[in-house]
Amino acid sequence: MTAQATPRGKFISLEGGEGVGKSTQVRALAQALRERGLEVVETREPGGSEGAERIRDLLLQGAEDRWNARAEALLFAAARADHVVKTIEPALAAGAWVLCDRFVDSSLAYQGGAGGLGVAEVRAINAFAIGNGFPDRTLILLLPDGNERAAARDRDRPDRIGGRPADYHQAVDRAFREIAAAEPERVTLVDATGTLEAVTARLVAALADLLP
Amino acid sequence: MTAQATPRGKFISLEGGEGVGKSTQVRALAQALRERGLEVVETREPGGSEGAERIRDLLLQGAEDRWNARAEALLFAAARADHVVKTIEPALAAGAWVLCDRFVDSSLAYQGGAGGLGVAEVRAINAFAIGNGFPDRTLILLLPDGNERAAARDRDRPDRIGGRPADYHQAVDRAFREIAAAEPERVTLVDATGTLEAVTARLVAALADLLP
Repeated sequence: MTAQATPRGKFISLEGGEGVGKSTQVRALAQALRERGLEVVETREPGGSEGAERIRDLLLQGAEDRWNARAEALLFAAARADHVVKTIEPALAAGAWVLCDRFVDSSLAYQGGAGGLGVAEVRAINAFAIGNGFPDRTLILLLPDGNERAAARDRDRPDRIGGRPADYHQAVDRAFREIAAAEPERVTLVDATGTLEAVTARLVAALADLLP
Repeated sequence: MTAQATPRGKFISLEGGEGVGKSTQVRALAQALRERGLEVVETREPGGSEGAERIRDLLLQGAEDRWNARAEALLFAAARADHVVKTIEPALAAGAWVLCDRFVDSSLAYQGGAGGLGVAEVRAINAFAIGNGFPDRTLILLLPDGNERAAARDRDRPDRIGGRPADYHQAVDRAFREIAAAEPERVTLVDATGTLEAVTARLVAALADLLP
């Protein structure tokens, strides 16, 4: 027998507030990793599997007060449990790198921090949902506060969550910084200012220890 | 000022395995309570509010393996969080009694006990979902094991959950007995054998200390 087991891929999540250029950077980072010979699966939350996309529709449509905070956090966690089992874990097992636009830390920052449910409580719900399925590395894109954030936000996510007021989004950024401080091995803050290429280069650099 | 605050209603849940006559008894018990002058709101899970009914559709339709156990438990909890805030709590605050066909103990028995996720873990998810919104009294209808159970089951709930094999449903009954033993003040086991009227009389008797 000379066959070797396929090495397991790495699971990378990109996080950040509205208007930070996150989705653009997911595509650019995927391209950069492919140029290094890696197979990359791009996915995003909420959604990323058939069942999770159905839950996404429930989460992002309707009136701002359609769901109370606890129902919303549980729906995100349910979608994530499906996403991990149906999409992320099979790809990692097959040796692909998985690049996910938002993952568990969006729940911690949005529902736990800014939404007032508590980061620890929302983390417990998500640990139930995904078990050991936390990312190998989480890259959080951060911009300085400023008016350009509000304009970018309106453009980027005109839905139930993107439409919330500025102090909500500042609380999201604060929670992201606290998460990074609490889990420095998994979570890296990345400066989102400068050109597209400069930001992508910072993201690749933040993965240097994981690259083959 | 001579106005008195409306006394808060009582929240009663009915539980039991498939084919135990639970839904029929919810209607009969509601009628018996109304004959005592109480205002009664009948509801059922999963569902009972607009958002929870949408989640119900996701839970009960589709293939048996559509959702993994953790996603399923989180969807039930999300629906419950909505049901409590939108339907149950407003009715109780207005002085009505709320009679619910299945509630948190179905999640503990089905997903936690029979489904193997663990009663304590599923209870933690649900405590997050509903806070102090546990029932004032939970009545669990139990039948002796036997072949008539299987036939009744097929008739009663021909969906993703009712269609599971007999040993799953035996594990559900076992979990219900364990929950009743662990929370004797809230949870009462009620013998479901005999005539409709005899069973209803037992249910009313099990609420004697709560009745005005």
